[in-house]
Amino acid sequence: MEIPVVRKVLAESDALAEQNRARFRSANVFTVNLMSSPGAGKTTLLAQTIQRLGQQGLRCGVIEGDIATTTDSQRLAPLGIPIVQVNTEPFGGDCHVGAHLVSAALEFLDLESLDYLFIENIGNLVCPAEFDLGEHRKVVILSLPEGEDKPLKYPLMFRECHLCLLNKTDLLPYLNLDLATFNQNIAQINRQLPVIPISAQVGTGLDLWINWLLANRD
Amino acid sequence: MEIPVVRKVLAESDALAEQNRARFRSANVFTVNLMSSPGAGKTTLLAQTIQRLGQQGLRCGVIEGDIATTTDSQRLAPLGIPIVQVNTEPFGGDCHVGAHLVSAALEFLDLESLDYLFIENIGNLVCPAEFDLGEHRKVVILSLPEGEDKPLKYPLMFRECHLCLLNKTDLLPYLNLDLATFNQNIAQINRQLPVIPISAQVGTGLDLWINWLLANRD
Repeated sequence: MEIPVVRKVLAESDALAEQNRARFRSANVFTVNLMSSPGAGKTTLLAQTIQRLGQQGLRCGVIEGDIATTTDSQRLAPLGIPIVQVNTEPFGGDCHVGAHLVSAALEFLDLESLDYLFIENIGNLVCPAEFDLGEHRKVVILSLPEGEDKPLKYPLMFRECHLCLLNKTDLLPYLNLDLATFNQNIAQINRQLPVIPISAQVGTGLDLWINWLLANRD
Repeated sequence: MEIPVVRKVLAESDALAEQNRARFRSANVFTVNLMSSPGAGKTTLLAQTIQRLGQQGLRCGVIEGDIATTTDSQRLAPLGIPIVQVNTEPFGGDCHVGAHLVSAALEFLDLESLDYLFIENIGNLVCPAEFDLGEHRKVVILSLPEGEDKPLKYPLMFRECHLCLLNKTDLLPYLNLDLATFNQNIAQINRQLPVIPISAQVGTGLDLWINWLLANRD
């Protein structure tokens, strides 16, 4: 009895992801699904990214996924871009952004007026990796204080993503960690995954990230 | 069709949790479910905790929950205590330790020979909060680099737990963060939740944590 029900739900989710994908393509908006553990720096990175793309005349929008609060939307609001906050708490506290939530959020966005759409997923290194939202690219942020073993322990995220950003490199002098081991562990899970070390707070490495966004959109 | 199936699964999980609880009580082993985001310091804390309790003649066992790898078990193995590794990857990559996995792990443990049993949950600040494993206490570790807003954004975890450990206080001089704001945000979600600031790596605050473990077992 159970498996057919689960399949039905996943099939619905995949169908919605396909609809989202078609809408992104038809509006020519490049969509990035940004995923990480809680507190890895997704919102800080987004603020920097939107400013830098804006300086090049590129227009960004954001779908902010959180279980609760509008904190992150409020942080991005001064940038003056279109933002839709999705809170899952009233709907069972979902641990990831689903394709149906993206679809619902799109009702509030004028896709034709955007070049980039960022979906900031819920802070969770496990479940969000399982769901297709119709996005062009999946990006994982791994925060250095989380430790070098995380790619090995949460392998699906690192298999599914197209880019890994290693954030908070400004803390490296204070951590008993080694960047080379991060790279080795990531390569052990996914040899194709490009890695860019960054500090979203300080600005280190962000040019490489912006170049990746520009190159992948072309 | 869907809701009855989900209810059935949850009812089975709760029944297994009750069975686990009965076994912990009958063996007089105090069981702690340790939860956090990936890389918040659960294993480092466990190593310190087991050593300190061991010095007082108290015998510990561990159920290590991970999606993949036996890294954490290997880190604890030199302590010479009973450890059972639970990997969820072969079973669909579950994002939390379920009561059925605890039940299966108990087949490999002699509960009568233990005073404390620690269940190190999978690194995830969302889903593990939803499941009763039959444990005596739920403890959340929040790592300072994750930021002050996490209790507000992941409220269920902070509502369900009996204690919050604020870890990596040794990094405080290098972070643009304020301990008082952490405390305020935790209190906003759960005014009853005690908070102990610690550095598992340096050893700060661990006496208070050990005292909490001793006092709660009595």
